[in-house]
Amino acid sequence: MEKMKDLAYYNGSITPINEMMIPANDRGFYFGDGIYEAAMVYHHKIFALQDHLDRMFNSAAMIRIDLPYTKEEVGALLSELVDKVESDSQFLYWQVTRATAPRNHLFPKDVSSNLYVYSKPWPGVQMSDSYRVITVEDTRFLHCNIKTLNLIPNVMAAQKAQEAGCNEAVFVRDGLVTEGSHCNVSIIKDGAFITHPLDNLILPGTERKHMLAYCRSLGIPTEERAFTPAEMMAADEIIMSSTSHPSMRVMEVDGQPAGMKDPELVGKLRACYMEDIER
Amino acid sequence: MEKMKDLAYYNGSITPINEMMIPANDRGFYFGDGIYEAAMVYHHKIFALQDHLDRMFNSAAMIRIDLPYTKEEVGALLSELVDKVESDSQFLYWQVTRATAPRNHLFPKDVSSNLYVYSKPWPGVQMSDSYRVITVEDTRFLHCNIKTLNLIPNVMAAQKAQEAGCNEAVFVRDGLVTEGSHCNVSIIKDGAFITHPLDNLILPGTERKHMLAYCRSLGIPTEERAFTPAEMMAADEIIMSSTSHPSMRVMEVDGQPAGMKDPELVGKLRACYMEDIER
Repeated sequence: MEKMKDLAYYNGSITPINEMMIPANDRGFYFGDGIYEAAMVYHHKIFALQDHLDRMFNSAAMIRIDLPYTKEEVGALLSELVDKVESDSQFLYWQVTRATAPRNHLFPKDVSSNLYVYSKPWPGVQMSDSYRVITVEDTRFLHCNIKTLNLIPNVMAAQKAQEAGCNEAVFVRDGLVTEGSHCNVSIIKDGAFITHPLDNLILPGTERKHMLAYCRSLGIPTEERAFTPAEMMAADEIIMSSTSHPSMRVMEVDGQPAGMKDPELVGKLRACYMEDIER
Repeated sequence: MEKMKDLAYYNGSITPINEMMIPANDRGFYFGDGIYEAAMVYHHKIFALQDHLDRMFNSAAMIRIDLPYTKEEVGALLSELVDKVESDSQFLYWQVTRATAPRNHLFPKDVSSNLYVYSKPWPGVQMSDSYRVITVEDTRFLHCNIKTLNLIPNVMAAQKAQEAGCNEAVFVRDGLVTEGSHCNVSIIKDGAFITHPLDNLILPGTERKHMLAYCRSLGIPTEERAFTPAEMMAADEIIMSSTSHPSMRVMEVDGQPAGMKDPELVGKLRACYMEDIER
């Protein structure tokens, strides 16, 4: 079968991404009533698939969306879909919305959740040694641990960063750094890796989890605790991490030089990632 | 021309609501990146149209969505659409999403916002003398003054209320009542009308605004200030108001009897509403 350049899937139908149509009554459209995941595909293999499936099922459970399939079944479907796309490296995205039904806040009865997937070519592993960021007030809801489609504050922050000539925005709530608009924020200080603890203020990022595991395997001390913007400014390194951008080294925060003082440790973590994706 | 039972409109196309399809790349679907309005239609006339157009344009401006038309133009389009629907009483809903574009947090360039509208039959003026509510913690974002499509916490609260055998949920933040999951909350005490001030914690409801105006015209004292749940329990009346449900008298909060002690004043406000919609 001929491969596609990119692909979208919605409840069994497959089209190019730009041609996929969904019902206006999908509750994603009315309420952002759904959750999502994104994963990297290298050599047509989905990296850290189990982590993403675990989080997908956790997110869905937390907002009480029923998933009428097992993790194994979704995994098999996703693997089948990325196989239909030509590119060796892909950005794979999927989201589940609660249902399709006439608009009403209440959960509709006797209808299933909708599964939407797309996969598109990706230019390989994205890393940076020159990230510039701004800090912004974190005014999001108190459910940032759930990977939902309610993303307006994230959209606004990312846009604000771009208009300031920067790559990302770092949220600060009550005097503490939480995370980025679409990534986690960690720092390295005196050889230790420090990152926000898992609670309702940050997303449990897969790369955050992986970096903690890499640190443990390398004997690098880790601390899961919140830090202040001042502590971030004084850190040896500031790393923004996400699935699609696993290791973005920050060189500037709010126009001030920052980080970039422990390239060796960053290099070790990156080597672990590169090894991991080839496993 | 034959009238329709109900109608949906999306960027110029018209279908029955259940048949309307939109592109998956509409940012409403990925980020809930849009704003909405709802209005009552009585005798094929849109009630308080100007209030809704004003708020629509305010909401769009606050999240920086460009509207490529004037208020007059949207108003004319909406009026044209409700004329195509058979029913004398209708629930009219419309939403604007930022754009249709491949998924990316950043605002896409050179694309227009999308306008989606639907209107459906409505069983006339909805009022109640037997509303039962629960209180829930307000964990929403700090932009509740913008009528956005980021509504998961509202959905979850409304569902929780229903499962508790109630009609609505009342949000409480930092020990103060903010609003309902899809309405404003006001109280009457010793002949005065008390309602949360306009800030980033509540939606500037059109019925909240109208009731304040009715009070002024009737010589009823008004106070725009937050109140505690205890103050709400001790109030003479608790009124939940929204466009579709303009006057819901609360008789029970968290299983305890409440309100229902100043039917005369409630009756006066309701008379004003009934007069207003016939104007």
